[in-house]
Amino acid sequence: MSDSHKPILAVTMGDAAGIGPEIAIKAFANKEVYNKCRPILMGNSEVLAHIMNLIDIKLKLNLIKQVEEAVFEWGTMDVVEHELEGGIKNLPLGEINAACGDLAFRCILSAIKFAMNGKVDATVTGPINKASINAAGHSFSGHTEIYAHYTNTKKYAMLLADENLKVIHVSTHVSLRKAVDMVKKNRIIEVVQLLNSALKTMGVKNPRIGVAGLNPHAGDNGLFGTEEQEEIIPAINKLLQEGVMVDGPIPPDSLFVLANGGRYDGCVAMYHDQGHIPFKVIGFEWDKTKDLLKSIKGVNITLGLPIIRTSVDHGTAFEIAGKGLASEDALVLAMDYALRFCSANYN
Amino acid sequence: MSDSHKPILAVTMGDAAGIGPEIAIKAFANKEVYNKCRPILMGNSEVLAHIMNLIDIKLKLNLIKQVEEAVFEWGTMDVVEHELEGGIKNLPLGEINAACGDLAFRCILSAIKFAMNGKVDATVTGPINKASINAAGHSFSGHTEIYAHYTNTKKYAMLLADENLKVIHVSTHVSLRKAVDMVKKNRIIEVVQLLNSALKTMGVKNPRIGVAGLNPHAGDNGLFGTEEQEEIIPAINKLLQEGVMVDGPIPPDSLFVLANGGRYDGCVAMYHDQGHIPFKVIGFEWDKTKDLLKSIKGVNITLGLPIIRTSVDHGTAFEIAGKGLASEDALVLAMDYALRFCSANYN
Repeated sequence: MSDSHKPILAVTMGDAAGIGPEIAIKAFANKEVYNKCRPILMGNSEVLAHIMNLIDIKLKLNLIKQVEEAVFEWGTMDVVEHELEGGIKNLPLGEINAACGDLAFRCILSAIKFAMNGKVDATVTGPINKASINAAGHSFSGHTEIYAHYTNTKKYAMLLADENLKVIHVSTHVSLRKAVDMVKKNRIIEVVQLLNSALKTMGVKNPRIGVAGLNPHAGDNGLFGTEEQEEIIPAINKLLQEGVMVDGPIPPDSLFVLANGGRYDGCVAMYHDQGHIPFKVIGFEWDKTKDLLKSIKGVNITLGLPIIRTSVDHGTAFEIAGKGLASEDALVLAMDYALRFCSANYN
Repeated sequence: MSDSHKPILAVTMGDAAGIGPEIAIKAFANKEVYNKCRPILMGNSEVLAHIMNLIDIKLKLNLIKQVEEAVFEWGTMDVVEHELEGGIKNLPLGEINAACGDLAFRCILSAIKFAMNGKVDATVTGPINKASINAAGHSFSGHTEIYAHYTNTKKYAMLLADENLKVIHVSTHVSLRKAVDMVKKNRIIEVVQLLNSALKTMGVKNPRIGVAGLNPHAGDNGLFGTEEQEEIIPAINKLLQEGVMVDGPIPPDSLFVLANGGRYDGCVAMYHDQGHIPFKVIGFEWDKTKDLLKSIKGVNITLGLPIIRTSVDHGTAFEIAGKGLASEDALVLAMDYALRFCSANYN
């Protein structure tokens, strides 16, 4: 692929006090990444230089304001520079900090702006700390909500994806009580359509979609809860009429085993933990020696936006920030998923 | 161990139309089982003879009414005989059937009665079909509720156990909406105490117990739901005062990864699927060729009863009934767990 045909990815540095800068440096230091795409980083050069020193990786920094100024050469990191208030003299590694939260937030806004203006083909986000973002006065519960707000998107949903399992969520960051109230026919139809379309984009010709029930045993024919009869089954019937290959409601404690075994190409979870628990049990490992949850596979994708956004599925891992222990695998995987969506857009 | 010191286990045949009789026959045909315990079966000899014929396993049947009549010899199945209404002429393999439901129900009642009268040391149940039980006029949602009712037990809970993961449930067969209402301080204290005591019985000297939050991210400090602040944290504080090593509330999508990795000896799930989803994702496999969920490990134990009850964690698998394809592994594992509780009672 000639260089000018490789998609341009805007990657965000994430929270400067976490492992975001480290995994970005490691990903940009990976020659394979440059074989597939043209990445630029939304970040701060002082933070990056400091972390490179700590973890002993040297990349040239090319500070840019516009994509046109990027050199896209392996060994050089093209950085769209964003100021860190107060400088890095006392970079509070591993701590909640408003200045770091504000920097992370502005990097995200830049990535969104570049993508909305067609300057980059997709955006890939590093891990942020919600408390730091909020300490900086930005009241959002996560990337998904920031992207939805600044792209003015009403119909969106969170997809978790790994090799076997693709799980979209009817709701995410709300109480379980509110999540129960949000199990509604129209919303279920909406997320199945988003998932169906995303699966096709990812190369599945005729996606088979499994829809979870809300209640234990999918309500056991109305014995424990009626949302299956009143909302989920009517949504499934409507989708079947439209020709979507959708199956359910399936008992929640069976669906993800079936999907992980290959029976479905994608799953619909009725609430955050119904999807996140199986996804993390399969895709995360606990590292006893470091007392750390480690993402071994898995990407978080926001569907429904006018732009492409993928993300690592792990957090800032404050406890190992600056120690050189973080793996860039999840970020590279998130970039790979972004590229899959880019190539579909080009076709 | 001399024969008379081996615990006596009452095993129930489960639903005659499912794989219950087959796995019981296979378990009783296993010499290892007789090295560890003295098993008797609550079942029906005509059904057993019919299934033995189908799967080509021959055991002598010794029909008994009292434990004292059992011979406890490998090669002979001691069966406490229960009538199947209408006989087995048209044994409806793979179908919901009131006669089979009634037979299964009476076998459970016998097992409970034998245990309550001290005639057996523990009970181990085979898989039943709830629809068949209900068709026979017995309105129960499962074994757990039948045992609680007939032993007059108010404080009980369901524990799922495999090698790494032990998960107790604050609630089980209720709607998710009702499950949210059931997250109460006193109930959480009750299940932690049941779990703590069971873990000690299973040989863990100082059990470390992880308690899940109810809401995503365990509510993120009250941002999504308040049950953590109002019910779960007060319960944990009370238990810590009592010296129980309890930790939480932990984000539900992290807890089970941590526990599976060895950080906790036991977990508390706030509702059925919060515990069942990770347990089945880890312990079940989907067999593509047979289109069947297969339990590869895992036992269901009712805690809080005056008697011991363990069970297979899988269903009746109607689709392969009588085909010789069912594995007795889960039943043998359930018998092993029952024996662990028996030996603790003897110490």
